[in-house]
Order: sequence, then structure tokens, then C-alpha cells
Amino acid sequence: MIPAVLIAKKRDGCDLSTPEIDFMIAGYARGTIPDYQMSALAMAILLRGMNDREIADLTDAMIRSGTTLQRVGDLPRVDKHSTGGLGDKTSLILAPLLACCDLDVPMISGRGLGITGGTLDKLEAIPGFRCNLTERETEAILRDIHCFITGATDDLVPADKKLYGLRDVTGTVPSIALITASIMSKKIAETLDALVLDVKCGSGAFLATDEQSEALARSLMAIGKRAGVATSALISDMNQPLGSMVGNACEVDESIDVLQGKGPSDVRELTLELGARVLVATGRSLQRRDALTLLEDHLDSGRAMVRFEAMVRRQGGDVRRERPLGRSRPWTASRSGTITRMDGQKIGEAVIAMGGGRTYSGQSIDHSVGLCFEKRLGETVHRGDVVVRILCDSDSKAEVAALVLETAIGIDDASTGNGAIARRLWRDFA
Amino acid sequence: MIPAVLIAKKRDGCDLSTPEIDFMIAGYARGTIPDYQMSALAMAILLRGMNDREIADLTDAMIRSGTTLQRVGDLPRVDKHSTGGLGDKTSLILAPLLACCDLDVPMISGRGLGITGGTLDKLEAIPGFRCNLTERETEAILRDIHCFITGATDDLVPADKKLYGLRDVTGTVPSIALITASIMSKKIAETLDALVLDVKCGSGAFLATDEQSEALARSLMAIGKRAGVATSALISDMNQPLGSMVGNACEVDESIDVLQGKGPSDVRELTLELGARVLVATGRSLQRRDALTLLEDHLDSGRAMVRFEAMVRRQGGDVRRERPLGRSRPWTASRSGTITRMDGQKIGEAVIAMGGGRTYSGQSIDHSVGLCFEKRLGETVHRGDVVVRILCDSDSKAEVAALVLETAIGIDDASTGNGAIARRLWRDFA
Repeated sequence: MIPAVLIAKKRDGCDLSTPEIDFMIAGYARGTIPDYQMSALAMAILLRGMNDREIADLTDAMIRSGTTLQRVGDLPRVDKHSTGGLGDKTSLILAPLLACCDLDVPMISGRGLGITGGTLDKLEAIPGFRCNLTERETEAILRDIHCFITGATDDLVPADKKLYGLRDVTGTVPSIALITASIMSKKIAETLDALVLDVKCGSGAFLATDEQSEALARSLMAIGKRAGVATSALISDMNQPLGSMVGNACEVDESIDVLQGKGPSDVRELTLELGARVLVATGRSLQRRDALTLLEDHLDSGRAMVRFEAMVRRQGGDVRRERPLGRSRPWTASRSGTITRMDGQKIGEAVIAMGGGRTYSGQSIDHSVGLCFEKRLGETVHRGDVVVRILCDSDSKAEVAALVLETAIGIDDASTGNGAIARRLWRDFA
Repeated sequence: MIPAVLIAKKRDGCDLSTPEIDFMIAGYARGTIPDYQMSALAMAILLRGMNDREIADLTDAMIRSGTTLQRVGDLPRVDKHSTGGLGDKTSLILAPLLACCDLDVPMISGRGLGITGGTLDKLEAIPGFRCNLTERETEAILRDIHCFITGATDDLVPADKKLYGLRDVTGTVPSIALITASIMSKKIAETLDALVLDVKCGSGAFLATDEQSEALARSLMAIGKRAGVATSALISDMNQPLGSMVGNACEVDESIDVLQGKGPSDVRELTLELGARVLVATGRSLQRRDALTLLEDHLDSGRAMVRFEAMVRRQGGDVRRERPLGRSRPWTASRSGTITRMDGQKIGEAVIAMGGGRTYSGQSIDHSVGLCFEKRLGETVHRGDVVVRILCDSDSKAEVAALVLETAIGIDDASTGNGAIARRLWRDFA
């Protein structure tokens, strides 16, 4: 097979065969297909698309570039994946919560890049927490407490690592086919029985429209089901941050609130809904209602929190040790009215401006900074009311964040409220 | 400027600005933009297209990556460019022919790759002929005899050299924008006053349909005119070879026939038509008819041949020394009927099979092999009639060529003759 001929085939809108896709991906992982051929193919895939069979083949070929996780017991293995949003801390809660339901949760997570935070970055706000567990360590932890949250080892889907880095610098990120293969290869390599997908939609997500989110959800579910993983999906609103907290240490605080039966209602509700789909998919619960009752009980009884503490301890951390948290300063409404806009891109930029996020891969971050939202979309405010508390020790950085927030948060006369206010927190996708 | 952002802009169908195009091309020539970003951009350009302003900017940026040729006198500087076809030897005739009309012809040509032959390869069939003239040598030759045919120096449009090599292996060749910039950057760098384009269309050309050929002709002319070069174009038929000869040494023979007022009528006619457009564009002739009369006289009087011999001599060659020519073997019709098909791709492959063409850049070729067509499309043949003479010293290679010709040449009942037979040799494009 000649790489340029296969690239031209996709360029002209033809389907690539299973051996053709395997040839390109295996060759790329091995280094015989150079970056410049893979980037041309990625652009052709982005602009011409792939059918479900091709995406499944792409996913398989990527999985075969490395090793997959081994089962360590008889419990169903489950996980959740979110396409990423502001204040999305549900992974921290779901992993121990589902482990309380006699499920194994081998959760491989990532770091933040751009406006979207990363689960590993948040957990590293806990003193001592390690995200670089070996496969042997993960197996031991799973056997004992049934959940862990760690980063991918170099052996897990190396083709995705390489391709993701290439896509980032060649304008080939927003492709349904490539995103699907990237996400699902890593999840399928966890050897799962069930997976729930949280596809974010709105100004704080990388997909802004319903159509795009639905297309991605459809593609992810198709590939999951082809791989024999019971896959379900929610589309959840990201036109404002999830919960009150956006940052790292402050999001751990909020997660712990929810794990103790408290916390913001939206974080709790979305976490429960995601968990319920996993319980139904694995047969742990017959119906969503039963599942919600079971999960609520694990939160409210404190059992989920106990499991979280155990997981953190096994990963080297200590929940009781003080986490760094920036000094709080109020950001107040400059006029009276209704909050009609919370631009996720801008809010994310405010956090990055304080050092709480990354503009390039590998950049170190400040876990102590963040934003605490006291008001939400649709709420009425009076001039001078506190809308956000900026958590940051540096005066100058806090000032920059405050300026960015001026462009992020819209306050209008009540009558001009836009549709975003009325959006539901989540909806099922099937 | 961030390369990935510019790539994404073109990916999304937006126009790139003049500084953006310059940033990418200058960076690529300098090595700060890596191959993998340029190939992704090339694929985005291929699939999204570029408007004339963008193509002109791309052409300019490529020209600025190197040096341009200097004028050496007061004569108008002219050239012809063909998009490449089988048996296309008009450059060998046109350069000395136009030089006879008090025009400077600084002709930079290329080598063959794939089924299309290269002017430099043909000329190198002449013992001693050098295609690697220095700029100083070209200036001296132009001053004395007003024409040369040589290869590009490393300084002439280096960005095109690099990009062309990349496109070849990344499936990004057939883009009107990229082809236009590649062709026109090299021609405009010759500092021309007038240029005539021979856009080939048919099975032996890289563009098979009228629509594609017209789109390319339109794009090439637009960029030529923007650069202040009086540019005209013909679309000429390439559903069968031009003339009788396809190869290298044998095409020199046929060119010399035409330069002496003889040779096949199609080669003579197309050469005269191309030359006439240059004479009219430069004001050397007022009308096409006058131009044709003048050019015919230069051929029939032998003046063009004298100029050709002088040019060859100045480039180190000797027309009178024997050129290598393979032994002739007949290829006969296996049935009686009408010749309805001469597949250019296949005919080219037959020549490559004998070593007369290249499958990869830099491959050495055998100048002695070739094909001599005794019959043309639409002609009636009887079983056993000679259709082609295979010129090749190697029995085994000649046999392979003969087998390939079986699939290349179609002989049918007269009534099934297809439209290609009726095609005109050339038509004006304006």
C-alpha cells in the first residue's frame, strides 16, 4: 500500500478499508508513516468524514498500537467520559460513588488544555496525590477499593498520544471521526463493560451547537456498542459553569461537598444521572429511579466520601491536609438586571490568566486560583451585588481576571433574557 | 501568527490574507513551518480552494523565496508552458522558432515523472547536451542567440521545489490553486512579457475533463495577467499522443523533422498556434494569420533549425552526432476495425516499462526506447497491420511494453467509434 494513494482516496471522499486504516495507523505508531502524511490524512478525514465502520477500524487500529488494561476481578468494569467543560468535577464524585455499587471503575483521565480543566490537575491540588500509577498499582487498588483515577501510561494507545499532539498543531482537532477514535480508543482499552458519555454543549464546551453535540454523541455511542461496551450518553448544558466553582483546589472542595450529600444541586443532579445510566446498563439497577435512590443513599450516608478518601490515600494523597486556596475578592455587578450570558470561553480565559489553566501542553499550573460563582444565568442582580468571588493571591492577576470577566458576564434588562437561560441541565441521548 | 490557526481558517473555507499566506510560505521555505503543517494546509487548500487573490499571493510568496532571472536586453521575453502530455515536444521547436522572431525565450523546463515526459530528458538524448546552465551562462546564450532550455537552479523558486516534493507524497497534487502557483511562480520568475499556456485535456493528460482543464486555464491566465504577463491559453487534445513519437531520442528526431518544415501535421499545427499567440501578445504580429505565415516561413526556410542547432551547440550538444535509438519491432492489430481508444495512461506505462520514463524522482532513464505510432484514432486497420513500432533493444522489455499496449489501444467495429475521435486538436481559451 502507498500512503499517498490512501490519502488521495480519502481526499476524494471514498471509504478506506480495514487493512488500509490499519496500515496507516500502525505505520504512524511505528514511525514508518511520517507526520506530514498523517496530517494530510487527518485533514482529509476532517473535511470528508468517515462512516461508522471506518471510525471503528480507526479506533481498533489505535487500540492495537499499545496494550489494554487487564480485568482484575469479576465485577463489571465501568467508566464515564466527558467531552470537557467548565467546572466539570463529576469524575471525582462518580468514581468512588460507582465503586460503592460493586462496580470496578478503572478511570484513566487527562489534564486540562485551553479553557477546559482536567481531572488530574484538580486531584493534584490534594497534597501528595499521584496520577502516574503503574499498571500493577492500578490493579492492586482496583482489587481493594474498586476505583482509581490516574493518567494513561505510555503503553496505553500510543498512536492516540502521537496523533493528538499532531492534530493540535495542524488544525485537525474538530473532526467527529478523529475525536471519536481518540476518546473511544482510550476507553475501550480500559476493557469496560459499560460507559456513560457526558457530551457538553454550549459556550463553555468545544461544541457549541446541538447538531454538533448530537453528531458526536451518536458517533461515540455507535463505536462503543460495536466494541461490545454498553454505552449511553447525555447531552448536558455548558452555557454556564457546572456548579459554583471553576479552578482546581476549589473544585475538589465542591466535589467533597457533593460526596457528603451537600454541594450545588446541578453538580449533584448531573452526577446522579450519569451514574444511574451506568447502573442500569450493567443491570445493577432495573430502572433509572431505583438507581438514583441507591446513588443518593451512597452520597447522603457518607459512604461515597469514605471511598473517595480511601482512593486518595491509596494514590498518595490526604484529603484532610489543607489545600492551597487563593485569597477571595468580590467581583460585583456594574448594573442591575438579569444575568443573561456567561461566556465559557472567556471565563476559562480568566482562570488561565490567573495561572489556573494551560495555554500549551506541559505548562505547570497554580492549583490555588479559581472562580466561585454566587449567581447563575437568569438570576436577578442589583448593582453592587457580588456575582463572582475571584480566588487568587496575586493582586495583578486577579485584576486581569476581573477585566476578562467584564466581557464574559452579560447583565441585561430582564425582558431581554435569551434562550440559554431556559436550557435544561441535561437531556438523554439515545 | 499561529500556523494551526491559519490552517484551521482555510479548513473552514475562509480566505487567507496576503500576510498570512506569506507567513506560511516564507516560513516553509526557511524551515520554521514544518512539513506536517504545510501538508495539512495543502490538503485544506485542495479541498476548500483559493480565490484568484489568494493564488496570486501564494505565487508571489513562492517567487520571493528565491531569485528571479534578469533581463539581458531589450527584446520581449516570452515562454510557453504545457501541463504535460504524451509526445508533447513543442518546446523543442518553439524555443528556437520564437527566437527567430526577435524574441528572447528564457525557457526553464522540467523532467518527466509518471507518464508525462520531460523536455530536459528529451534534450539529454542529444550527446553532450547540458541542462544545468548557470545563470551567467543563460544570460550569455540569450544575448547571443535569444533562446535556451535548461533546468531550474536551486535559487529559482525553492519553495516550489520543496512543496512539490511534499505534495507528491501527501495526495495533494491535483489542486487548481497549488498547480497554478507552482507553474506560474516558475514562469513569472523568468521575468516574462508574454506567456502561452498549453493546457492538455484527455486520457494522456493529468486532467481528463473539459471542466477541469478550463478551470486550470482560467486560473493560470488570471494569475499571469495579475503579474503583468500577457498570458494566453489553448486547450489541446491529449486523448492520443501528439505526433507519432513517444519517448526521448525519437521525440528529438520528430522535433527536428518539424524544425525542417516536415514532421507530423498535428505537432506542426499546435506549435504554430502556440507561437502565433505569443507573436500577437507581444505585438510582433497584428493578427494570428500574419503570425502563422511568419512562423511557417521560419520553419520551411530552415532558419528555425539553424537556431536549434546553435542553441544545442551552446548547451554542449551536437545535433549531428548519432542519438541512441532502440531496435524497431512491429506491434500489429489483432483484429480488423477502427481505432477507437489510445489510453494515454497505459501508453505512458508502456514507455516506463521499457525504462523511458520514471516512477520516482531522480530515477535514470533510457533515452533510446520509445513508441512510433503509425495509426491514429479513427483510422481503419486490418488484422495484422502495424499500429505501433516499439523501439527497444531489450526483447523482454519490448514484450512487456507490447502486453501493456494490448490494454491501451482499442480497436472496434467502425460504428462504435466514440466521441474522442471527433475531438479537435486544440481550441482557444479566453
